[in-house]
Amino acid sequence: MKVNGVHTRAIWPSADGQAVEIIDQTVLPHAFRVLRLSTVETIAEAIRQMQVRGAPLIGVSAAYGVALAMRHSADDASLTSCMALLADTRPTAVNLHWALRRLDTVLRPLPADQRAAAAWLEAARLAEEDVEQCRAIGRHGVELLRRLAESRPFLSRPGEPLRIMTHCNAGWLATVDHGTALAPIYAAFDAGLAVNAWVSETRPRNQGLLTAWELSEHGVPNTLIADNAAGWLLARGACDAVIVGADRIAANGDVANKIGTYLKALAARAAGVPFYVAAPRPTIDFCCAAGETIPIEERSGDELRLLHGLGDDGRLASLRQLPLTAAVVNPAFDITPAALVSAIITERGVCEASPIGLRGLYPEAEP
Amino acid sequence: MKVNGVHTRAIWPSADGQAVEIIDQTVLPHAFRVLRLSTVETIAEAIRQMQVRGAPLIGVSAAYGVALAMRHSADDASLTSCMALLADTRPTAVNLHWALRRLDTVLRPLPADQRAAAAWLEAARLAEEDVEQCRAIGRHGVELLRRLAESRPFLSRPGEPLRIMTHCNAGWLATVDHGTALAPIYAAFDAGLAVNAWVSETRPRNQGLLTAWELSEHGVPNTLIADNAAGWLLARGACDAVIVGADRIAANGDVANKIGTYLKALAARAAGVPFYVAAPRPTIDFCCAAGETIPIEERSGDELRLLHGLGDDGRLASLRQLPLTAAVVNPAFDITPAALVSAIITERGVCEASPIGLRGLYPEAEP
Repeated sequence: MKVNGVHTRAIWPSADGQAVEIIDQTVLPHAFRVLRLSTVETIAEAIRQMQVRGAPLIGVSAAYGVALAMRHSADDASLTSCMALLADTRPTAVNLHWALRRLDTVLRPLPADQRAAAAWLEAARLAEEDVEQCRAIGRHGVELLRRLAESRPFLSRPGEPLRIMTHCNAGWLATVDHGTALAPIYAAFDAGLAVNAWVSETRPRNQGLLTAWELSEHGVPNTLIADNAAGWLLARGACDAVIVGADRIAANGDVANKIGTYLKALAARAAGVPFYVAAPRPTIDFCCAAGETIPIEERSGDELRLLHGLGDDGRLASLRQLPLTAAVVNPAFDITPAALVSAIITERGVCEASPIGLRGLYPEAEP
Repeated sequence: MKVNGVHTRAIWPSADGQAVEIIDQTVLPHAFRVLRLSTVETIAEAIRQMQVRGAPLIGVSAAYGVALAMRHSADDASLTSCMALLADTRPTAVNLHWALRRLDTVLRPLPADQRAAAAWLEAARLAEEDVEQCRAIGRHGVELLRRLAESRPFLSRPGEPLRIMTHCNAGWLATVDHGTALAPIYAAFDAGLAVNAWVSETRPRNQGLLTAWELSEHGVPNTLIADNAAGWLLARGACDAVIVGADRIAANGDVANKIGTYLKALAARAAGVPFYVAAPRPTIDFCCAAGETIPIEERSGDELRLLHGLGDDGRLASLRQLPLTAAVVNPAFDITPAALVSAIITERGVCEASPIGLRGLYPEAEP
């Protein structure tokens, strides 16, 4: 998508082919800063620090991490250890493990001296696939929104934009391009369908600000709200649909996504508003029977204890520790039961959140 | 309750009797600062800026505001205009209007030269009533908690503390003393019942930090969470009860309270966890048939747009405006339907959230 009118992706190979470049998402929207990452260690750290984040982007970043590691040392032990390093960065998003498994399948049978080139090629292929998958999610999703818009006389006043709530950032910044939850919104906007996005702040990491920023850069009208306001807006009929991304979808349709997603799903159900989950194939974990077995990442309590802002040097800094003795619990994700999900939008189409729905789209999937 | 071991209230007459003193709640927990307010205008501004906040404390502050105004000028026009000034500060909490009506009833029939003394007396009386009401709420609430603790073998592991979630600040800082939602927690702690409070941050104004601060000052174990985490904690069985305060309770038991309360009520219901609302008589609006007629205050978008922190001068300051063009919608309250409220705890006892329940406790109430 576009930044200042210039087409930009969330990750790309550097011009010299020796590294990848990313947008440092910890300083957005305060600053737009590109980082060059030339080792697997810096990529692992960028994932851990959330300079890159979003399940699909984490997967592609990890693939490039393997490729950079292979240039340095490509024997079996190196392949195993770089994968372990990357796999250990963040536990919940399954795209990471999906990408690593795929690179392992491609690289392991090859002689060591062919692995670096093959890994780079495979990482680039993963990136392109992600772009195509997200574009297709947009195409399928916009059809849902179009039908919703056509049925809207009883949902809201005619002539008003379709009001779509999202959570966290599942836009192009969370993928390589287009996004997952935001892909249908961009597709609708580009097709001339009037839309307005409710963007929830998404404490404690405020990824909603990334969403507000990227939507605004593309010209999509959007309105920022506190996470707490989502229930009230849904209850008073101010929202026509909710679309979120996912970090992992279990085989039964349960969805792990950014903490707070479950509360929005409850409120959407109570309000009779459709709740959609948009995610590509690599986010679906057919090995995971149900949401209760998905590991939920617990992050540092400092995400709540510290006030963050830009220091005088233009770098994001912790401003002042809250003078609190209270303990902090800070889970990064929650599980939305399949029963609260109206439909899942993937690159293959729209299906119900159930084993039948997911198997219907992916009959070939293992196990 | 206590600050640094010293008994403190949230508002008190100054030693010279010429003003009231309050704790500036906009700088807590960063700093503990007492403000002297000697005019109705400064009291109105303190309410508007949320230096005093919480429905019961707003009511008592407004009463003192009338008393200070009467010292300056006590004719009918002055009485009317100071009441209008105060009534206009915040729309949702009904305690404000309750206190003003009560002062009007007392003062209007009196000759002007008797009004100042009578108003001060009535304000002090309101304050004492609030203390007694909150103490009684604690007494009734702790019985509920005790029964919950006794039935807990099937709710969680024995020997663990009772885990009670709250939202916003409905502690002694929101009243004159003891608090509403926190009164049962303090009473349980003081009675030796093991408790641990889940305290949600409460964006955008972060009043959860006030709750964490005052609970910690009293020694009550508490754990800070992002608002988004409440659903997940309830879903995974980490919470035994939710207790919140209220800004207005309609005659049918619908509850207006801090934005985000409704989401917690939905999650509590889904998890089979009791959801209690604790509030004194002045919070119940028998003139309001149902929640949909309660006015919901919309506050400035700057509450989301600005990062706040303590500046070098030790004063709370806006640090940097977010570089966002997005609109902001910032409702301060939401409505939790009576159907999601397990019970209402008032100074008279515990009742169901319904016209029958509320009338049963207050048969004499008008209309």
